[in-house]
Amino acid sequence: MLFLALFMCIPLLVGVIYKESTFWSFTAPIIILAVLGGGLSFLKVKDKTIYAREGFVIVALVWIVMSLVGALPFVISKSIPNFIDAFFETVSGFTTTGSTVYDFNTLMPKSVMFWRIFTHWLGGMGVLVLVLAILPSDGSAMHIYRAESPGPSASKLVSKMRYTARILYLMYIALTLIETILLYIGGLSFYDSLLHAFSTAGTGGFSVYSNSIAHFNSTFVEMVIAVFMVLFGINFNVFYLIIVGKILKGIKSEEFLVYLGVVLASTIAIAINIISIAGNFWQALRFSFFQVASFASTTGFFSANFDNWPALSKAILLFLTIMGACGGSTGGGVKVSRLIILFKSGVKDVKKAIHPRSVNSIKFEGEVLPRDVERNTRTYFIIWVAIVIVSTLLLSLDGFDAAGEGLWTHFSATITCLGNVGPGLAKVIGATGSFAGYNWFSKLVLCFDMLAGRLEIFPMILLFAPRTWRRN
Amino acid sequence: MLFLALFMCIPLLVGVIYKESTFWSFTAPIIILAVLGGGLSFLKVKDKTIYAREGFVIVALVWIVMSLVGALPFVISKSIPNFIDAFFETVSGFTTTGSTVYDFNTLMPKSVMFWRIFTHWLGGMGVLVLVLAILPSDGSAMHIYRAESPGPSASKLVSKMRYTARILYLMYIALTLIETILLYIGGLSFYDSLLHAFSTAGTGGFSVYSNSIAHFNSTFVEMVIAVFMVLFGINFNVFYLIIVGKILKGIKSEEFLVYLGVVLASTIAIAINIISIAGNFWQALRFSFFQVASFASTTGFFSANFDNWPALSKAILLFLTIMGACGGSTGGGVKVSRLIILFKSGVKDVKKAIHPRSVNSIKFEGEVLPRDVERNTRTYFIIWVAIVIVSTLLLSLDGFDAAGEGLWTHFSATITCLGNVGPGLAKVIGATGSFAGYNWFSKLVLCFDMLAGRLEIFPMILLFAPRTWRRN
Repeated sequence: MLFLALFMCIPLLVGVIYKESTFWSFTAPIIILAVLGGGLSFLKVKDKTIYAREGFVIVALVWIVMSLVGALPFVISKSIPNFIDAFFETVSGFTTTGSTVYDFNTLMPKSVMFWRIFTHWLGGMGVLVLVLAILPSDGSAMHIYRAESPGPSASKLVSKMRYTARILYLMYIALTLIETILLYIGGLSFYDSLLHAFSTAGTGGFSVYSNSIAHFNSTFVEMVIAVFMVLFGINFNVFYLIIVGKILKGIKSEEFLVYLGVVLASTIAIAINIISIAGNFWQALRFSFFQVASFASTTGFFSANFDNWPALSKAILLFLTIMGACGGSTGGGVKVSRLIILFKSGVKDVKKAIHPRSVNSIKFEGEVLPRDVERNTRTYFIIWVAIVIVSTLLLSLDGFDAAGEGLWTHFSATITCLGNVGPGLAKVIGATGSFAGYNWFSKLVLCFDMLAGRLEIFPMILLFAPRTWRRN
Repeated sequence: MLFLALFMCIPLLVGVIYKESTFWSFTAPIIILAVLGGGLSFLKVKDKTIYAREGFVIVALVWIVMSLVGALPFVISKSIPNFIDAFFETVSGFTTTGSTVYDFNTLMPKSVMFWRIFTHWLGGMGVLVLVLAILPSDGSAMHIYRAESPGPSASKLVSKMRYTARILYLMYIALTLIETILLYIGGLSFYDSLLHAFSTAGTGGFSVYSNSIAHFNSTFVEMVIAVFMVLFGINFNVFYLIIVGKILKGIKSEEFLVYLGVVLASTIAIAINIISIAGNFWQALRFSFFQVASFASTTGFFSANFDNWPALSKAILLFLTIMGACGGSTGGGVKVSRLIILFKSGVKDVKKAIHPRSVNSIKFEGEVLPRDVERNTRTYFIIWVAIVIVSTLLLSLDGFDAAGEGLWTHFSATITCLGNVGPGLAKVIGATGSFAGYNWFSKLVLCFDMLAGRLEIFPMILLFAPRTWRRN
């Protein structure tokens, strides 16, 4: 909480620079965080050891509290006056989803807009990972790191947790800066460059403008953002290996190659599919690459209105929403590595059905995959599907879009929030749409989906399991 | 093939009774089957042992050949002149799906209509199971029975395979006859009574009329059919236990109770949801119970146009499509027992995340569930989801319903065919809709889905696995 208070000083400063009357919008939550955080730090804790259970619960609770307090600037500045709406927007920000309820006709001060998009950057790599990078750790940090890092297995780059976190953040900051500079060269204002770089880095999707990247109408800007979206969807291990000179080992990563392959194949397929809408093949390729990069990395920016694209293009975007990016990146979704493991695990079982005495193990990234990782991946996916079904049912209680696409809208909203993408594939919540029409209950369900997606399901499920709160 | 030839003599006879000119519509395929089947029976086979692999392949091939030849009466009688369409209709018949491409404005002779709906009855309990019941078995029959029986584990009622098959068919025939008599009492003609009983028994869904059971506009008829739909969705083990006097053991079946519970809860929820459409609560309950029974048992009949129902009702129907009926019934879907196992398996894994040293096994139907059944169930479900995704993508290549619900239509078509329900939840393939608009490729994809659904995926996947055809 104290760290979050510190981070909120940055938009406070932005407000001062732009001479906006947003002083209390940030000072109020900062005071709340300082009092709460300061007070809690005086609490005497008998047993400070953090096991898996504590790691999960800490992460889930911190993210919820962060979003509750982080919503205040929107409410106080009256840019998003309703608290539930502001909470939804903040959860969407921290989880790097990018689904929005903000009405672009309402004025949002530049400092508040900065905060809105800065949440993507903070949430992308993980706020707690950042804290780990700064604070001296006492060994139990691994469980927190594991609970907050995306992917089937959180690997440490170097033996010390703390240095791993630092290296990750250094690469993250460097890439963000490079993108900011490139966008600035592309003709954007410094403010726009920085904010869209934040949004890309966290694979979030919030934009300063209602028509997202289409606003700039520049092929250069689109290509810069598209390439960086693809980059931020890659496992940071790959970058680390390349930096320390193990280029071949980095590039030969199975997950990395499959991810690039899917991006390439999807880009070509959609480009061919939308030629008639885009006018010519090159235009089609431009829009297609941008949108594929946006959905595969689970960012959610758009440069063209994909609502009007044919079913095949939408089906591919839906698949990308489910797949998501690589583990260990800032992207969401089920993760490429998980799909690879699920696929190999399925093939193995089919082989076993033919020859009951065939091999029992599968290989991933050149090594035999531990049985428990395989099992956990399958569990993850089954619970993922269960959440999709239950969430779709719960959203159906809402009369929202009853005259429109109805059930499809609810299904699409669930998938895009759980995958941390942002826009849905149903028109009303699509590229130019908004989630504002849902009622408060539906918004809370979607908040659960977004948090479950970003925190990889387990912390959120555990939060609601009675057993978690039992002493043992 | 020889048995199928024998079964086709029944509609031939129906044609003679009604003095229809359908002699060659049935005689031609009968001759083909007789020549092929007779010829094959002269083939000398060195090793007659049937292992799991052979069991799966035999079942898949037999079902495809049955559907290819079974399509001929439709083509020859010109009721469904296009062969791909006729093949789709026959696969839909044998797999008890009930998705139709038949245009009710085209005349279909009574004998051909008899054949259309008789395929449901034959496919419901399994043609090969029927053959097993009649032919003396040599011990390797279990693998065929297993591959053709629905559910996570095929249990023998009595120690001999052959007697199990006979008992199953006796109960099946008895229930069909009772329903026929009740419908006849309800005012239907003998022809209509028998055909709709066939359709119910196989949990198919083909009707003689374009507006299905709404045609009769009779609460009595609707309730008889609804109750029998629910009954045919129950594991036949339960009936067997009740018949042999072990009533309590039969009724205490976990799967049976969950199934009834879901049907009850869904009925009430939908009834409340559609009051304003139905006019009053009792009308709402009448329509709701019928539709829930129809979807939960994966029959696919309708008594009201559910296309106009609100999103919540459709979401529940979608869930029922996925869930399906009990294992060991004639119904389709993922099966109640599999969902129970998946749920318990998921809860166990969540518990393990909290306390790594908690129990490792789960209980089902009062007994510890073998690890391999749990594993196979999870494999089944993951492959099921993979088929949904790939099939939706493949159907999206088709321009069908591009101006309408597009992607939702393709998703819905996949789910309903894979679940062997029949009508989709998108308007164009809904209660009053038809699958005729899809192109030939999409129809073949849907045929794969229907067969994969009916044969529980593995036989169809194995058919396309190169390893299956390798000698070892």
